[in-house]
Amino acid sequence: MSDGAPPAVAAVDWGTTRMRVWLLDNGGNILGERRSDEGMLSAAGTGFEKVLERHLAELGAARDLPVIICGMAGARQGWLEAPYAQTPAALGEVLAGAVRIPGIARDVRIVPGISQNDKASPDVMRGEETQLAGIGTLRGPGTHTVCMPGTHSKWVQVSDGVVSGFGTWMTGELYSVIARESVLKHSLGGGALAFSSRSEAFAEAVREGLSDPAALTSRLFGIRAGSLLHKLASQDAAARLSGLLIGGEVASARLRFSVGGSPVILVGSGLMYDLYATALDAAGIASTQADADEAVRHGLFEAAKHCGMVH
Amino acid sequence: MSDGAPPAVAAVDWGTTRMRVWLLDNGGNILGERRSDEGMLSAAGTGFEKVLERHLAELGAARDLPVIICGMAGARQGWLEAPYAQTPAALGEVLAGAVRIPGIARDVRIVPGISQNDKASPDVMRGEETQLAGIGTLRGPGTHTVCMPGTHSKWVQVSDGVVSGFGTWMTGELYSVIARESVLKHSLGGGALAFSSRSEAFAEAVREGLSDPAALTSRLFGIRAGSLLHKLASQDAAARLSGLLIGGEVASARLRFSVGGSPVILVGSGLMYDLYATALDAAGIASTQADADEAVRHGLFEAAKHCGMVH
Repeated sequence: MSDGAPPAVAAVDWGTTRMRVWLLDNGGNILGERRSDEGMLSAAGTGFEKVLERHLAELGAARDLPVIICGMAGARQGWLEAPYAQTPAALGEVLAGAVRIPGIARDVRIVPGISQNDKASPDVMRGEETQLAGIGTLRGPGTHTVCMPGTHSKWVQVSDGVVSGFGTWMTGELYSVIARESVLKHSLGGGALAFSSRSEAFAEAVREGLSDPAALTSRLFGIRAGSLLHKLASQDAAARLSGLLIGGEVASARLRFSVGGSPVILVGSGLMYDLYATALDAAGIASTQADADEAVRHGLFEAAKHCGMVH
Repeated sequence: MSDGAPPAVAAVDWGTTRMRVWLLDNGGNILGERRSDEGMLSAAGTGFEKVLERHLAELGAARDLPVIICGMAGARQGWLEAPYAQTPAALGEVLAGAVRIPGIARDVRIVPGISQNDKASPDVMRGEETQLAGIGTLRGPGTHTVCMPGTHSKWVQVSDGVVSGFGTWMTGELYSVIARESVLKHSLGGGALAFSSRSEAFAEAVREGLSDPAALTSRLFGIRAGSLLHKLASQDAAARLSGLLIGGEVASARLRFSVGGSPVILVGSGLMYDLYATALDAAGIASTQADADEAVRHGLFEAAKHCGMVH
């Protein structure tokens, strides 16, 4: 916290299902914070401006406080489409390209996502570009590989502050739909991630995913057979599903991106960070941690500076 | 149809969501047939005996006509658990091991499934063993690989009438849950298999699945990105999802089973057969067709003979 400095900008991370609002002073320090489930899907019904203004009012923000937003609020189904910057995309330019919402008094801008338009591996990100920009190392010289676990995990190559290429693995979403909707639901008992990164079942599945990622869709059924034949416990079944998917992701990403120079920057915290750190370690890939919340907040503050909202 | 021969046995293929009943004479010829949605899940509520007797009555079957059943009716959640035969499993012995339902007057027996109990690749089948037994080639000498597409695709190695090993790929179920429940639903528009096996999008995705099966969970997201960036049509998106999954299955199965001696026996009909035949062809694997309905009916009739129900 700063010593009584006034708010300089409101920073909003507005995802598909959740949003977070921070009030920041002109040094980027946190003066207030709100979290809500009013993500893009919900806010599209209520109205984005209405949702935002209510949170700002609760935080006591002035009527002319500028607002910088990243994430799905900038998608076609969002508040205003912020057209993608294309790879190779300089992070500074992406931030400076934030699009202003027209027709309202307050200065509200949305950071664009990044697209990769080549036909062989089309891909898109929205929100991750701001996290990347918030990791100081990535704005400096050198080539880095970043792993951003999540519903749609991203692996990103950044060279001298420029996003040169990236890929998305549907790891988190596949875990969720397979655990909830497939025959494996009978083996997983709800599918909660009720295991630790030190689970032997997770470690074993990671090794299998790393060594033979092509066998994924077959090994998945082995979880069901394992619970029928060997009474595989539900938490071990969940650990196996997670391990196979994460191990397979790491095996596939390391083939696609040059991994092995500087350590992979692993963006996350809590269990998800631990699981990926364990998997990277099993693959012999060195990694360093970057906190996701901090990264997006720093990135939003950088964007506010690039747009001239904060001086 | 035979010339007025009386029914010798009723043959029932009783799966998870559907059932079929045939009246057969002592040459295995069809005298009557019924299909229904009263699969195991539904019949477990209504009562298996009640459902069966109603269909037999509709077909005019005598009260003492014996009945042979295969499929999920023999699962733990089914009518009566028919414990798995274990690999290596001689098909003739599996059929002869059909379990009689106790406590009812009619002679009703359920063919057991087959399990593969090794810890590295635990697996189970119920119903497919009867299809396998119904394919004449497989009861004779020689080593054959069988591909049985479906919700849970099976690849089976059969040597001299003995199932030596098999694997399950969750191809059909993954297609369905990903098309209905994941972010790809926005790209697939319902997810119906509204494309032909001659679709160029399918062929291209099969080639990608065959050459780089490890990249599956990443290429899946490429379907979403492709529809956002390149306006990929929904039928092409569906064809890509199917092609990636089937191509990946074939790539993985060929690594696990010796494919290349005699042609793979591909069990199926209609679009599903065409899609797999196209994928096997793209992989340079020769195949011959076996009809799934005919195979299960022949297998059930063989089981009735092995159990002494038909002479």
